[in-house]
Amino acid sequence: MTISFAQRLDHVETSAIRELFKLLGKPGIISFAGGFPDSALFDVAGIRAAVNAALDAEPGAALQYGATEGYGPLREQLAAFMATKGARDVAPEQLIVTTGSQQALDLIGKTLISPGDKVIVEGPTFLATIQCFRLYGAELISAPIDRDGVQTDALERLIEQHRPKFVYLIPTFGNPSGATLSAERRRAVLEMAVRHDTLIVEDDPYGELYFDAPPPPSLLALSAEVPGSRERLVHCGSLSKVLSPGLRVGWMIAPPELLAKATMCKQFSDAHTSTFAQATAAHYLASGAMPQTLARVRQVYAERAHAMTEALQLELGAALAFVPPRGGLFVWARLTGAGGALADGDEFARRAIERGVAFVPGAPFYASQPDRATLRLSFATVGVDRIVEGVQRLRLALLG
Amino acid sequence: MTISFAQRLDHVETSAIRELFKLLGKPGIISFAGGFPDSALFDVAGIRAAVNAALDAEPGAALQYGATEGYGPLREQLAAFMATKGARDVAPEQLIVTTGSQQALDLIGKTLISPGDKVIVEGPTFLATIQCFRLYGAELISAPIDRDGVQTDALERLIEQHRPKFVYLIPTFGNPSGATLSAERRRAVLEMAVRHDTLIVEDDPYGELYFDAPPPPSLLALSAEVPGSRERLVHCGSLSKVLSPGLRVGWMIAPPELLAKATMCKQFSDAHTSTFAQATAAHYLASGAMPQTLARVRQVYAERAHAMTEALQLELGAALAFVPPRGGLFVWARLTGAGGALADGDEFARRAIERGVAFVPGAPFYASQPDRATLRLSFATVGVDRIVEGVQRLRLALLG
Repeated sequence: MTISFAQRLDHVETSAIRELFKLLGKPGIISFAGGFPDSALFDVAGIRAAVNAALDAEPGAALQYGATEGYGPLREQLAAFMATKGARDVAPEQLIVTTGSQQALDLIGKTLISPGDKVIVEGPTFLATIQCFRLYGAELISAPIDRDGVQTDALERLIEQHRPKFVYLIPTFGNPSGATLSAERRRAVLEMAVRHDTLIVEDDPYGELYFDAPPPPSLLALSAEVPGSRERLVHCGSLSKVLSPGLRVGWMIAPPELLAKATMCKQFSDAHTSTFAQATAAHYLASGAMPQTLARVRQVYAERAHAMTEALQLELGAALAFVPPRGGLFVWARLTGAGGALADGDEFARRAIERGVAFVPGAPFYASQPDRATLRLSFATVGVDRIVEGVQRLRLALLG
Repeated sequence: MTISFAQRLDHVETSAIRELFKLLGKPGIISFAGGFPDSALFDVAGIRAAVNAALDAEPGAALQYGATEGYGPLREQLAAFMATKGARDVAPEQLIVTTGSQQALDLIGKTLISPGDKVIVEGPTFLATIQCFRLYGAELISAPIDRDGVQTDALERLIEQHRPKFVYLIPTFGNPSGATLSAERRRAVLEMAVRHDTLIVEDDPYGELYFDAPPPPSLLALSAEVPGSRERLVHCGSLSKVLSPGLRVGWMIAPPELLAKATMCKQFSDAHTSTFAQATAAHYLASGAMPQTLARVRQVYAERAHAMTEALQLELGAALAFVPPRGGLFVWARLTGAGGALADGDEFARRAIERGVAFVPGAPFYASQPDRATLRLSFATVGVDRIVEGVQRLRLALLG
């Protein structure tokens, strides 16, 4: 039979990146293409202890249906975790647990976006956010970024011009940009939220992955200093990048009315997030192991980031421009075309695969007006020696 | 700020049942209101062994991001599980893993329903299905049921009249009806799917919970005998009622084109189902423990169902009409008003709570034209003695 699909599917397509990922099975390839943490860094022993403790202490709760809002002890632990990150006034009932922060994005879309509504995102931004919001019929507007994150003057003009349903930002170690919004701009974003009565969505999966010094406080933490901003702010967090993506534990902090609607939508999306995973995460956080885990992953990713940026400067020189990241998983770079070198990310990606190294070209990360000279390189899952070798292969692909 | 929500939220409301559930905390209450399995029957030792085996054998895979379609070894185990249920030709790549079967319903809605599309459901049907499909803008049409499930003559007339996007059925031990579609009607449903080129969604969370004899083969199993029906059939399964709801592991079998679109939508809904839960479920199924687990829960639920139906007949007699279920978790009953007794389910529920016993009135389970004399009683989570006591309280509430 010919199935007639919903109109909303007309707005999205299977990602070009998925096609690229099919090539990654090639033997011997060095991949800078992933967007995930290194599984070798997972605290398997700690998670094993946590799940066994959960099954000892509360097997019924860990294996039974649970509240849509999330498992009570986990909500308490996550509120306490937010306090360690500078947001000291988040009560457990002000957050709901989501099935990864991807589900928080889905619930934001489902709850807020009517077809034709405008949403402002960074250009570039997280690919799955673009597709997720488009599925609900959003028209996306891109706000330009630089090394200090979204350009707030331009953002304010776009807010005035488009009156968006909300603004979506990844202010800290952005994906794909690696950029971090400066403290001054953070304050400016909160102030313009109040001034224009605009909702801001802060997606913060990477904030804990800093290398040398902590980033500026999150918009959520700063909102305590900007009257009226908290009621216009949604904050999404996740254990995926710092503990384990496989647990699928994220959370969402939002004004009460929005949180209630998101909870209702979640009820019909997946009833609740796995209590098995939630109870495990709750016991893990309660065990006090998280600070050590964070310290370890920060150190490893810092070493790898340093190795990658050093090798890129050495091998590719003026052909590639980038700002060394201060945290997160990504180097975002731009082919300059210097000396007549290639300046097209797609073509470079194809040539790189032939040389045995993979990355993601940058164009798909733009909701509009893609910069085709850009590319995203992840250093997170590759050891230092292989990073150096991979960058040498990039040089061969680009400069011969 | 005043948040302006998406138009799709205009179609749904927080369920009346959730309000009722708030009363269940009352001390000493006997609850027949739940829709969940008894956590005392969970195979905690088996699940503990499975998660530890998963963390031994493949910690990286169990804790890392995974394919949106599902974890390969689990898809294989689920295909093998379907074979034990009579669907012998399901290849692992013909199913995707979902975050409970609630997510399968959500993906069906997201993938297929445009605002204004018509969908036929049973009257009564699963409450969260009604709300889930309405969120996507579906107009729901109710097809009448009797003790043998949906009335196929009436269903065919409704299909001809409304040309629905699809027909949603719970053919086996339905929620809330407890009814099971007869073998002849199953064949008739598949034949009319072909005749009218109509998609059928078979939701089958309860099929394994039979008391004396297995139910007729699922629509999926029967589709092998009705040429052209398989390509018009979606089948949703779940481990929630037979193993553990807390794992949130369901699955969806569908024609390839629909499965591909559902996978794309799932990518932006929650990326993938918890690999931690999926690897645990895969190891559990591979351990061979499932047949014994099923035998145990079948026996306990059969005893409780028998105790409830016997007590209802003894205590409430002609005031309550029902068909004893042959499986599942529910007795669906109708107040007859005999001897001038109350015939309103809502009012009966209120009086019952005062007497210390809870159930769910039937009206909310109808997408249209509710029968207000109906009610749903679950025997699943209450021991035999308390069932008898609870039914005595029902008598006091109804007959004084």
